[in-house]
Amino acid sequence: MRLGLRLKSALMKKASIVSIGNELLSGQTISTNASYLSERLLSIGISVISSYTIGDEIDLIVRALNLASSDADIVLATGGLGPTDDDLTRQAFAKFLGCELQLQEELLDKIQQRFANRNLQMSAKNKIQAYIPAGAKALENNLGTAPGIRAEYTCPEQGRRKGKLLFALPGVPLEMKQMFEESVMPELQRFAGDQVVIIRKLKCFGTGESNIAEMLGDLMQRGRNPLINCTVEHGVITLTINATAEDKDTAQQIAEKDEKLLRDILGEFVYGTGEQSLAEVVGEKLTQQNKTIATAESCTGGTLAKLLTDIPGASGYFTYGWITYSNDAKISELGIPRELIDKYGAVSEQVAEAMARGAREKSGTDFAVGVTGIAGPTGASEQKPVGLVYISVDTSNGCETKRFIFPSKACPRAKRRDRNSVRLRAAQTALNMVRLRL
Amino acid sequence: MRLGLRLKSALMKKASIVSIGNELLSGQTISTNASYLSERLLSIGISVISSYTIGDEIDLIVRALNLASSDADIVLATGGLGPTDDDLTRQAFAKFLGCELQLQEELLDKIQQRFANRNLQMSAKNKIQAYIPAGAKALENNLGTAPGIRAEYTCPEQGRRKGKLLFALPGVPLEMKQMFEESVMPELQRFAGDQVVIIRKLKCFGTGESNIAEMLGDLMQRGRNPLINCTVEHGVITLTINATAEDKDTAQQIAEKDEKLLRDILGEFVYGTGEQSLAEVVGEKLTQQNKTIATAESCTGGTLAKLLTDIPGASGYFTYGWITYSNDAKISELGIPRELIDKYGAVSEQVAEAMARGAREKSGTDFAVGVTGIAGPTGASEQKPVGLVYISVDTSNGCETKRFIFPSKACPRAKRRDRNSVRLRAAQTALNMVRLRL
Repeated sequence: MRLGLRLKSALMKKASIVSIGNELLSGQTISTNASYLSERLLSIGISVISSYTIGDEIDLIVRALNLASSDADIVLATGGLGPTDDDLTRQAFAKFLGCELQLQEELLDKIQQRFANRNLQMSAKNKIQAYIPAGAKALENNLGTAPGIRAEYTCPEQGRRKGKLLFALPGVPLEMKQMFEESVMPELQRFAGDQVVIIRKLKCFGTGESNIAEMLGDLMQRGRNPLINCTVEHGVITLTINATAEDKDTAQQIAEKDEKLLRDILGEFVYGTGEQSLAEVVGEKLTQQNKTIATAESCTGGTLAKLLTDIPGASGYFTYGWITYSNDAKISELGIPRELIDKYGAVSEQVAEAMARGAREKSGTDFAVGVTGIAGPTGASEQKPVGLVYISVDTSNGCETKRFIFPSKACPRAKRRDRNSVRLRAAQTALNMVRLRL
Repeated sequence: MRLGLRLKSALMKKASIVSIGNELLSGQTISTNASYLSERLLSIGISVISSYTIGDEIDLIVRALNLASSDADIVLATGGLGPTDDDLTRQAFAKFLGCELQLQEELLDKIQQRFANRNLQMSAKNKIQAYIPAGAKALENNLGTAPGIRAEYTCPEQGRRKGKLLFALPGVPLEMKQMFEESVMPELQRFAGDQVVIIRKLKCFGTGESNIAEMLGDLMQRGRNPLINCTVEHGVITLTINATAEDKDTAQQIAEKDEKLLRDILGEFVYGTGEQSLAEVVGEKLTQQNKTIATAESCTGGTLAKLLTDIPGASGYFTYGWITYSNDAKISELGIPRELIDKYGAVSEQVAEAMARGAREKSGTDFAVGVTGIAGPTGASEQKPVGLVYISVDTSNGCETKRFIFPSKACPRAKRRDRNSVRLRAAQTALNMVRLRL
């Protein structure tokens, strides 16, 4: 069977990605566009065989388009569609296709309208964004001024029927994704052919990557179908099940079988699927059970409330939040006795519990969470190291408080991110505690 | 002068990066090796002009090495040095250089020793790691079994003196960095010669990219030295000044001259330098002026407080924060009259102002910010569209309230992020208003 799949894969459509922008070569920006596109293309059975990153120079862009299109059936370029002089993608597309740029009155109207809607004056520079290569099609951008480009190219040496598809998408990830999903993905789905890859993701929280790998054992072997990959970010472990088959139903079946297997092994470590966040799952459960929640944060400084309110419709269950960063705020806003803080310190089990209880009492919610800890880099002592966090969840069934030490290590080149990894881990762990109580 | 500098920059040594590995093309792994190398090379005046990512296929690797070496003086390949069948970099190097792989007894001893030290049996597979192309040099790997490769290549068509340098480094970031710093960087420093690039960044907020481009005009022209690049993320515009010269002092001088020029043109749009965030600059100013701040948030749901407390030492100026997501919370926690909300709505100039005033009164801080708006996707009306946000900053000198409409549009796969772009823009704009009052 494995051989069969390998032979099939020669028939798979191929894509190449061209990422454009000097900032991508200076080491200042890590582009996530290429990996996003690779993953989405693979999900419809298109494999990315090469990826080029080049600066804002028209001849280099044209050369990359030549290289990319010589191997691949589909070329996706990102970046260089802005209004400034270093945005050269549309010019490079025209040169590569051997045609002129043409002003599209309709596009110009749309761009002008976009500015007018926001009571802004359109700058003369933006007019260039209404030009696209003759014969190409503009792709709508609902999030920015730069339209994308769709062009078809017939490689002269490969005969007329070898039509290849070229797309230019914005470099801003949000705009790129929106345009890709709305204007590119549907066409590519039809274009892709008969090898199908179904991707399922299981999101886990509450244990480490190596423990998960040990629990799964041989299931994670390379070459296996479905292939199971494991990535980790801020404590969230994502297991990706890549199931390949000749048709969608079969791929779906073998993916589902593995998903069930993994769920049986991992139990309550699995909190969700796809791109679900812990906050999303907590929000869904609160909504279903018609419950409300309040937050009282110290070291996380609003991170927990932000995660909860990231979710559309959060106002249905989230009502009150306090960031009691100073001791005075803890006392005046949550009614915590000053003596409690004096006796145990602001970072203590007692204060975490009093924060949760105080928040629930004042807000009248079903759940309340209290978080207090030491995010660092300062504020630590021998007894209370950086990363020490107490999290308390209060409900009408009682209050549960846990102590954690989240990993933290001074990172010379990005001191700030380290502090935030403690904060984010603390907020996520608080959400996970709420999830397990729901 | 510009011509002179342009000629010089043609003398700058150029590098190209080749990242090898199927996993880099499946979208599961985001390689940070290329950006690490780019930044390090630029710091010694070597500019990366292209970056190729390709799978584990020998012919594709050879082609990428050909392409990379045709433009660049230095080629850095990463990945594909492991012991398994899909590790093909050393074979590809041999093929590209037109020579055989040779067993190096000394390397074999080292690899065997490495296993012996850890009481492990060396697998037969590992023997391949003791082979390197004839005439090339092995680079020591202190962290793993795979040695690197250093080779010199004389392009036949460019004559004997055009020696180009090729390096193969491991794909594991930790091993790659260690080998690069120890065995590659010192040689490249000597090789780089006498071109230095100084990079300065100016961070701007409060206007759009195209307006900035218009204000700067010819300064952003390609080929100019310093070269000025412009990127934008969540309303923060970063202008990067890349100044090239024969020595550090001169590069520094021309970078400084441009920085001053840009600052004169852009005035108070410039809020900081380097990697500074708005919250960092606000925090610095609050600390210097010995002032404190409190926040009262509705639609931003903790985002503003989170940004402020991202900064180490925020407890010195940030004391109280409220997330009054429900009307009841606004009334009970900030003392806003119910009639005010009934009359003008929770999203109104009047309520934003009352939130800021209420927060400052309760916390006794010097500054307080109130934010109320419609983050979407629901909750909008014809008069109050998604993206409408009122921000109020209250101080002892009075209260200033502004109305904004931040761009927002439903994004099929990432609805949440879009909502969050409104929230983040609102929080950043609030910080900017505070900055301008400080």
